[in-house]
Formats: sequence, C-alpha cells, structure tokens
Amino acid sequence: MGKTSDKQPDELEAMRHSSAHIMASAVQKLWPEAKFGVGPVVENGFYYDIDLGKITVSEDNFLKIEKEMQKIIEEDQPFEKSEEPIDSGIAWAKKTKQPYKEELLNDLKREGTTLARELDASMMGLPAGISGTTPVKAEVGKVSFYKNGNFIDLCRGPHVASTGKVGAFKLTRVAGAYWRGNEKNPQMQRLYGVAFSTEKELEKYLKLLEEAKKRDHRKLGKEMDLFAISDLVGSGLPLFTPRGTVVRKQLLDFSEELQEKSGYQRVFIPHITKEELYKKSGHWDKFGDELFLVKSQETSDKFVLKPMNCPHHIQIYASRPRSYRELPIRYMESTVQYRDEKSGELHGLSRVRAISIDDSHVFCAESDIEREIIAIIQMVKDLYGVLDMEFYARLSYRDESNEYLGDKKLWETAESIIARVAKEEKLEFIEEKGEAAFYGPKIDFMVKDSLGREWQCATVQLDFVQPQRFGLAYVDSDGSEKQPVMIHKALLGSIERFLSVYIEHTAGRFPIWLAPEQLRIITVNQELKTTKFAENLLAEAKELGLRAMLDNGNESVGKKIRQSEIQKVPYTVVLGEKEMESGKVVPRIRSDMEVQKPHAAHKINDFLKTVANEAKTRVSKTSL
Amino acid sequence: MGKTSDKQPDELEAMRHSSAHIMASAVQKLWPEAKFGVGPVVENGFYYDIDLGKITVSEDNFLKIEKEMQKIIEEDQPFEKSEEPIDSGIAWAKKTKQPYKEELLNDLKREGTTLARELDASMMGLPAGISGTTPVKAEVGKVSFYKNGNFIDLCRGPHVASTGKVGAFKLTRVAGAYWRGNEKNPQMQRLYGVAFSTEKELEKYLKLLEEAKKRDHRKLGKEMDLFAISDLVGSGLPLFTPRGTVVRKQLLDFSEELQEKSGYQRVFIPHITKEELYKKSGHWDKFGDELFLVKSQETSDKFVLKPMNCPHHIQIYASRPRSYRELPIRYMESTVQYRDEKSGELHGLSRVRAISIDDSHVFCAESDIEREIIAIIQMVKDLYGVLDMEFYARLSYRDESNEYLGDKKLWETAESIIARVAKEEKLEFIEEKGEAAFYGPKIDFMVKDSLGREWQCATVQLDFVQPQRFGLAYVDSDGSEKQPVMIHKALLGSIERFLSVYIEHTAGRFPIWLAPEQLRIITVNQELKTTKFAENLLAEAKELGLRAMLDNGNESVGKKIRQSEIQKVPYTVVLGEKEMESGKVVPRIRSDMEVQKPHAAHKINDFLKTVANEAKTRVSKTSL
Repeated sequence: MGKTSDKQPDELEAMRHSSAHIMASAVQKLWPEAKFGVGPVVENGFYYDIDLGKITVSEDNFLKIEKEMQKIIEEDQPFEKSEEPIDSGIAWAKKTKQPYKEELLNDLKREGTTLARELDASMMGLPAGISGTTPVKAEVGKVSFYKNGNFIDLCRGPHVASTGKVGAFKLTRVAGAYWRGNEKNPQMQRLYGVAFSTEKELEKYLKLLEEAKKRDHRKLGKEMDLFAISDLVGSGLPLFTPRGTVVRKQLLDFSEELQEKSGYQRVFIPHITKEELYKKSGHWDKFGDELFLVKSQETSDKFVLKPMNCPHHIQIYASRPRSYRELPIRYMESTVQYRDEKSGELHGLSRVRAISIDDSHVFCAESDIEREIIAIIQMVKDLYGVLDMEFYARLSYRDESNEYLGDKKLWETAESIIARVAKEEKLEFIEEKGEAAFYGPKIDFMVKDSLGREWQCATVQLDFVQPQRFGLAYVDSDGSEKQPVMIHKALLGSIERFLSVYIEHTAGRFPIWLAPEQLRIITVNQELKTTKFAENLLAEAKELGLRAMLDNGNESVGKKIRQSEIQKVPYTVVLGEKEMESGKVVPRIRSDMEVQKPHAAHKINDFLKTVANEAKTRVSKTSL
Repeated sequence: MGKTSDKQPDELEAMRHSSAHIMASAVQKLWPEAKFGVGPVVENGFYYDIDLGKITVSEDNFLKIEKEMQKIIEEDQPFEKSEEPIDSGIAWAKKTKQPYKEELLNDLKREGTTLARELDASMMGLPAGISGTTPVKAEVGKVSFYKNGNFIDLCRGPHVASTGKVGAFKLTRVAGAYWRGNEKNPQMQRLYGVAFSTEKELEKYLKLLEEAKKRDHRKLGKEMDLFAISDLVGSGLPLFTPRGTVVRKQLLDFSEELQEKSGYQRVFIPHITKEELYKKSGHWDKFGDELFLVKSQETSDKFVLKPMNCPHHIQIYASRPRSYRELPIRYMESTVQYRDEKSGELHGLSRVRAISIDDSHVFCAESDIEREIIAIIQMVKDLYGVLDMEFYARLSYRDESNEYLGDKKLWETAESIIARVAKEEKLEFIEEKGEAAFYGPKIDFMVKDSLGREWQCATVQLDFVQPQRFGLAYVDSDGSEKQPVMIHKALLGSIERFLSVYIEHTAGRFPIWLAPEQLRIITVNQELKTTKFAENLLAEAKELGLRAMLDNGNESVGKKIRQSEIQKVPYTVVLGEKEMESGKVVPRIRSDMEVQKPHAAHKINDFLKTVANEAKTRVSKTSL
C-alpha cells in the first residue's frame, strides 16, 4: 500500500520519521520523565518505543498527544542536525536521564558500525525487508543528533526541513514491546502512527484500515467458526474446526489436483528427524534459533521439527538408484514445517509456528527445467484464476557478489529460461538482481488482495546446491552418472497465511466450492410435516455432494436467517407451507453474489442440481 | 501361535526354560569362560544373554551348539534343585566368575522380592504381557539353584524332571543386547531358540516362520518400493514413497469415507502443544519418558509432540458453547501421535516413533452411547469385510479394584450396553474383567492374519474422565448444563502397524483398489508404432482413474514381466503386433487372483472398464 503515494519514497520516509520525532516531542512535553528507545519508520507510518514508568498510555490519550503534536507542527520548528563525539553523546544521555540512548551509544562505541546495521533490522524488531531508519550513525567516533524545539534525539536522519512539513498523520495503536525485543529486558510502550504526504492519502488509507479491521481474519474466523486458538495448546498453533477444515481441505485438494494432472505424486514424511539431516542440508546453520529442538528421553538421538521438507524428499529420491527414464520425478506433499517465531510476532493465522505448505520437489535433468517451470506457471494461473485473485511475478536473479553457489553456466541458462518463460507465458513481472536464493534463481508470485495489499504466495525455485550436497545422481541414457536439478514449488504457500489473506480478501464470503456450508435449510415452524420435508431436502442435498445444514430450531425465522448471514452461507432456503405445496423455493442468495434473476422461484430439484454443479465446477459466480 | 500346543502352558514353559538351561550348559562346555546373564522363556521359545568376551557367536555356530545340547539331552541329566542362603549364592558366583549372577544376587539381597518382579519384566527387556520366568527367587534370604550335569544356574524354576524331557527345539538367531537393557552396560549376545512339545509342532512353527520371513514387510517394502528408512532421518521414522503413499492414502480415504457416512467431520490440529495441555489431561504422567520434549529457543514455552489427539480435539469442542441440538459432535482426523520407543524396539513399520492414526472422538449424551457404538461396529465390519480379514472383539470391563475413575452408575450402564450390542451385532467376542481403561470400558477388535497371528487394530473406548477434567459441557433441552461422554475410536489403528500386518497378510498382493500400480503396460519393442499405441492405452487407463504405468524399456519382455511380478502388479498387458491388430489383449493376471476365464482375450476397452470398475468398487476378486 506504500505505492499509493506520489512522493518519492525517501521523502515520504523522512516525513514519517519526522512524525516519530514530533510524537516523541509531544510525549516528552506531556510526560517529561519519558525515556525513549528507538523510533523507526515502518510500512505506512512509524512507531516509537517509550518507557513511561508506571504511566500506561491508551488510545484514550491519543487525542491529547495528537493535539500536542499539532502545536509543534504549527510552530514549524526546524530540524537542526549536529554532530558530536560519541563520548559527548554518552554524557548527554546521562545528563538527560535517557538510559536506553546511553546503552545504544555505549554499544555503538564498543561495536562500531556493525551495530548500526544490526539496529536497522533485528534490534528494532523489524522483520527483514521492512525499511526503517536507525536512530544512530557511526562515523569515526561521531554521532549525529537532531533537535526540534526543546526535543533532542540521537538520530541518523534524514528529516524534513521543519515540523510544518510532515504531511498528514494519525496515531493508531499502542502495544507492549520489550526493549531490544528481548523478554528479559524492560517492557516499553510502542506507540504506532500512520503518516502520508496528504490528508487525502491518509484518509484513503484509514478507510482501508477500517475495512481491513472489519475483515480481520481473527474476527471472522471466530464468527464463522473456522479455527480456534487455545491457551493450553499455545499461540501460533491454531486448531481447525470442522468448518475451517473444509476450507483448508478444499484448497489443498484443488492444489493437489492441479499437481496430480502435471504428474506429481504424493509422498509422506515424518515431522521430526535427526539433526544430522539438516546439518547436511545446511538448514541447521540457516535457521539456528528458529529450529524447534526435540529431545529423546529414551535415547541419545537429537531431533528437530523439520523447518523444510526438501531434505526429506531428497531421502526418498536417494532411497534407490535412479535412471534417466524415471525423470522428472515429482514429489508433492501437503505437510507442515516448523518455525519458532517469537511470541510477539505470532498473529492469528498470518504468523504461526506450524506452517502447512502445499510443497513439492521436482528432480529433473537440466533439459527439463523449462517445461517444468511452464507447467508450474500454468498451475499458478489455474489456481489463482479460479480464486479470482490477480498476481504478478517477481523474477529473482544473482548479482555480482559471490554469495551464490553452483555452476555459473547453469545459473546463466536457468536465468535466461526464467526470463524467456515469463515473457512467453505473458506474465506481468518485475526482475530483481541480487534477490535469488543462494542455491538458485526463483520466481515469486505476488498476489493482490481486494484491499490492494500484496502477498507472496506461490513460488518456484531452482536448486543446484542440495542435489550436490546429498550426492544425488541418475544414470543417463549413455550410462554416465549425472546430477539432477531440483525445483522447489508451492502454489498456495503457507495454507494458514493464505487463509488469513483469503478470508480478508473475500471478507469471509467464500465462493460456493469453498464455503464450509453451501446451503442452509431453515424451517418456519417445528411441525412434523415441515421437519420431514426439510429432512428430505437435506438428504437430497447431501446426496448431491452439497455441504448442507438444517436449522430447525425454535428461534424466529428472522434470527435464523441472520445466523446464516453471519456465517456467510451462500444459499439459504426457508421452508414453509408455500414451498411444500409448490415444490418451489426462492433461495436467499448471499448479497455479494451477482444474481441473474433475483427472487426467481426454482423447482427444488433444479435448484439443488444447479448449486451442486456450481460447487463441483468451482465457478466463482452463481448462475441462478 | 502359542495356541498350537496341546500341552498345558505351564508344562510347555518349563520345557522351554529347561531348553534355555541346556543351551547354557552347551555354551559353557564349548566356551568355559562364558558369563551368563538371564535366560527367560519368551513367546514360542527362550533366549539366554551370554557374555563371551571377544568371541562372537554367529548362526554358523548353531549346529555345534545344538549338537552339544543333543548330547546333554541324550544323557537325560536330572534337573536338581537346591536352596542356599543368599550369601552362599554370592560366594558361588564369585568363585565361578559369574559377575552378572553376582550383581543380581547382590541386588536381590539389597532390594528383596520387589526386584524379583522387576526382573520378570523390564530388566530382561521383555515387553509387558510376554511371559518369562525369573532366574532368581527371593525367599527369606534364600535363593534356589538348578543343576544339570556340571552346569549350575541361579533359577526360580520350575523345570522338567530331566534334560531328556524337553521336547523339540531349534536355535534361531543371535542378537546384541545390553546387560539389563541399558546402553551404558556391557553388550552381551542374546541367543534365541524356539521350542515345542513335539517335533511336529516345531516343524509347523518353523514353516510359518519361513513363510513370515518371505512376507517380511521390510523385505517386501523394499522390493515393492513402498517405504524407505533413512539413517539421516532416523529409525522408527519411515518415509513413504509414491507407491507406499498410494496404499496409505487409499486405506485412510476408505476409513474416512466410512466415518463421513456416519456423520464424522474432519478437523486439523498441530503436532506440538504446550506441556500444560497434557498435564491437564493426565497424559503427561502416563507417558513420562516416552514423551518427546520440544524446546523453544525463542521463548520459555515448553512443548511436547502430542502422544494422543484427544486433548486437542477437546480444545475444539471447548472453543465455544455447545447445545444438545449439536450432539453428537464427531471429530475425525488422520493424524500422527508420537511415542519415543527405545531404538532396540523399533522395527520396520510395526514399531515406529511417529504413529499415524485414523483417530476420532465423539462427544455425545449418555443416551447416544449405544447408537454411536453400533455405528462404529458397523464401520469395523465394513472395513475389515472389504479387506477380507477376520476379527473378533475383546470386551474390556472393570474389576473390583479402585483403579477406575468416573461415575459407577455410568460404568454399569456402559458395560451393559457394550455386552448387549456385541450380542445384537453378532460379534464373535470374549469378555475380560479388569482390562478396561481407567477412564471407561472398551472394545478392542483383534484381527487375524493369514499366518494365524492376531493383532489389535480397531478399538472403541468410552471416556468418562477427560470430559470432567476439561470441564466440558453442553446445554440440555431443559436449559441445564450437562457433561458429554467421549468415545475414542480407531478403525485401522496405527496405519504403519496396520500396513506391516497387511503387507505380510497379503504377501504384498494387494487387492486391485489398494495396489499402488493396478496395470502395467509392456511393449515388445521400441518401434514408434508400438510406443504410440501403448501411450494411447496408458492415457485411456489413466482417464478411467487407473494407476497405470508403461514399461517401454529395451529389456527383454520376460525381464519386464518379471519386474511387474516382483512389484505384485495385479494386471499386466503385453503389447505387440497381434494386440495392435486385433485390438484385444490377453491380460496376465497376478497368480493369486481367482480368474474366471484364464487366457481369455478381451477387447482393450472392455478390459480397461472392467478393471477400473473393480478398483472403484473395492472388490477383492477379479471378474475377468
């Protein structure tokens, strides 16, 4: 959504970062004892971590802070930069009782510029890829400060010229955050704001935010009874209810169906493995602290919960000799990989610890690469076509650095294949140098949701490294031993994350084939005759493969209809005397669906058959 | 298979135990420096753990040992019992340089009779339930010895009167075993023998053993490419290849289909959970050392790999209020539970660490119990009927002890329901008091394989305890809050174990619907015309939903047919000039299948349709 601004990104970043300083100035004015941590720019805005001792800031205080900020803006205070020797900086922090700034400066003095980079990302708890400016700058023993009014902050800059030039902003939320992201450190209050160049842009964004809030998958997940989070099980470990499991399964079945058509075969692997496997694959070093370690009490074996599936699939490939005639070998599996995310980073289905993936691995000859990638692109088109979601491709290549492993010639060939195929397949795409994985070039598919947000979902990655590490081979037609190329692929990617995106994309209004409940039958009374009629209809619907339910409760018809609406059931039929006599129903069709003939009466059997057919053919619109 | 003997079990046990002594006597004669551990009776025979220092006994030595044993038997040495004070025993062990016996005696002196019981089971590495006699007896400071010829052994007895009365025996294998089952202790050699009352019984058993060896699922699993064990992944963690995954999936799909028909709904739960969940359920204490502990490096959360699925499913039930109108709620899931078995106990697919279960949990009112159990029995009948396996039911009730939790009246009702239903459903059954789970009575279904072995596979268990522990409730029709009853159920049980049984039961000759590959097409040459024809046939077969493969390799037709036979493919067609001209094939049908018209020619299309229909309807015999 950062793309909505016309301003240059750098200028907008300066505005946002300046807003963070203005917020801090305002907080200092209101609560002079405030101790400041770091205050970087994040997507769409900024935050500042502040220690206010026993004072708790809530959203009720936002208006007060915003008023104070407005005053500072009206005063149009210039942002004045100065450079000081690091020791003067430390003395300043001591004098002004800013222990967090003092700690940063001391670390900076000790560690030098390396720290500056660390501060940029991990220390501020920013996920990689989100831009943020560091509050400090290490330059031959000097650090820079910015001053506006009476507020002075250790800061690398840049800033806008004066407080009057910050554009439009709004404080949005406050959350707890440990100093430097470490549970053992004091907890601070993280004040978030959003900021844009113009009021119009801000308003547009706030509307989007409001809509996003309504569509929050955690809220809808509860209302629609799709999944549950249990304190006894733990956060980041969602439990899928029957309704949520239907959606999961339908999506996975569709993904597997597409793969099966392209010659992929199911395999099944365990979720734990000896550490040795991932030491050999290189993932042990790569994932480090994010690995879940599993202790055997009975033996000295050391296990991990698998962070990736490829090394396991490689073991199946390697379980017997292979001939060129078997290639390409294509293993697919919808299975779970594990990532030990920090508790604070877990969020509904978006960030979980057990990540289900519609994963696959192709083992093929170099000459198969092009055909395999084309097949995968076709699957992506088919899947997101049916899901009615737009996407573009991000082609990631090497750059001039030496980080990339594997044969140079193979890299060249592969990159040129990717570029050619993207064109031939008429993909909308961008190309990025230096974004390849160390083991090979890749295509990531960026899916756009109805709120304009972009999500990386599908991916196809070439891998020249793991086949080498595990000594994979096949006997070629001339009897010589060759090394296969591996192609990693996911269509939906993390199912949990995809679901969070898709629930918000559709606001829970799933197309018929994905709806956990496709048809609800409501009775107007509890008379035996009505009940019998409704039960027969239910049985017929089920016979046709529909996921149908009967609401025969003694609540009012209005209340029962409302229930069906909350659960976003696409079709609801109300059964009373009239329907029983005529054998016709006027189905209530979910409001978002484009109806051909509204309020038309349909013969019950015709209606059921039409709906069953829509469900089977995965159409996104009703033909009623 | 112990049932084949006419002798009283006690007499046969004495014969087997006496054979162990005779084997030890023979070993001592051959290698006088032998140090003896323990030598109990096991199913069908006996073993003795012996420390022979640097000498390694192999199967090549068996004839020599057996000859020596034969001599001892011919001498008809009487087994003479004597009782000695424990200290004399210790002195004897010292003098005769038997350090293991000395250790046992010292422990016995210190610990008293408690040890004797420990020795009976765990110390000797015997799984619970397998009978074994202890070599020692604790009786007010005295221990008993048995002597035959020059061989004296610390032993509780009883023995047969003399060495001439031991019946028929044969040494079968030798394996490494740590003293007292502990990796840190010295490794000994465990010599196994089988023993029966008569030569005839022994021969019958050895034939069965030979047949079992041929059918060993580990051997067939490799030949048929069904699963792989990787050293890098670890033992007890099999990887299923595409072929093995087909069989797994077909079985699970069938199980789920049966459940779905009975109103069961799929759910999906994570494999790890916070320890708290299993502490609350009681499994934490129950499983102890067999739990895999999972360490989060990022947080202080402590997780376990789930040993059972019920507490998770309970969390889904508890995720919102429930009404009587929703009951019975039936959750099903084919998922994995974990058990950290000792490395030595792991065996192919029979004993694994990650156990896939076709699990389910019904939450219902007391008045639903009978109907739910009947539905489950019906599923068991349907499943094992199609699988062509006989079974009987073992009904397990309380006894007079106080081990059983939950309401007494509920127990009574439930037990009487189980007994009544078993009769009404015409089950072959036995009843056992004191075999119930502590949380409720149960029915275990014992499946018989083609070698006469029995396996506990399906189970249905009532649970009155967990609903209470987790405070589960529903609002009844009168508005009052009630506690639901839980019913645990598995049809196949552990899929891995079931597969090991089923592979050996069928000798890998799966019925058509389960065969990983249902049809193999073999060409007589590599000519373009033949290839085209074969490829068309392959496409048609696939279109009909058949799992078919084309072998177009340049090996001889004979070799290609042999390959298809090894992989137990039910149908093989060979395509040559004649078949292409006539459009007819004479299918080669796997030798075990009862064929109606052998060597009959079928129109290719008719043949494909017949086979596709057999696959879909899960028939166990061909109609060709």
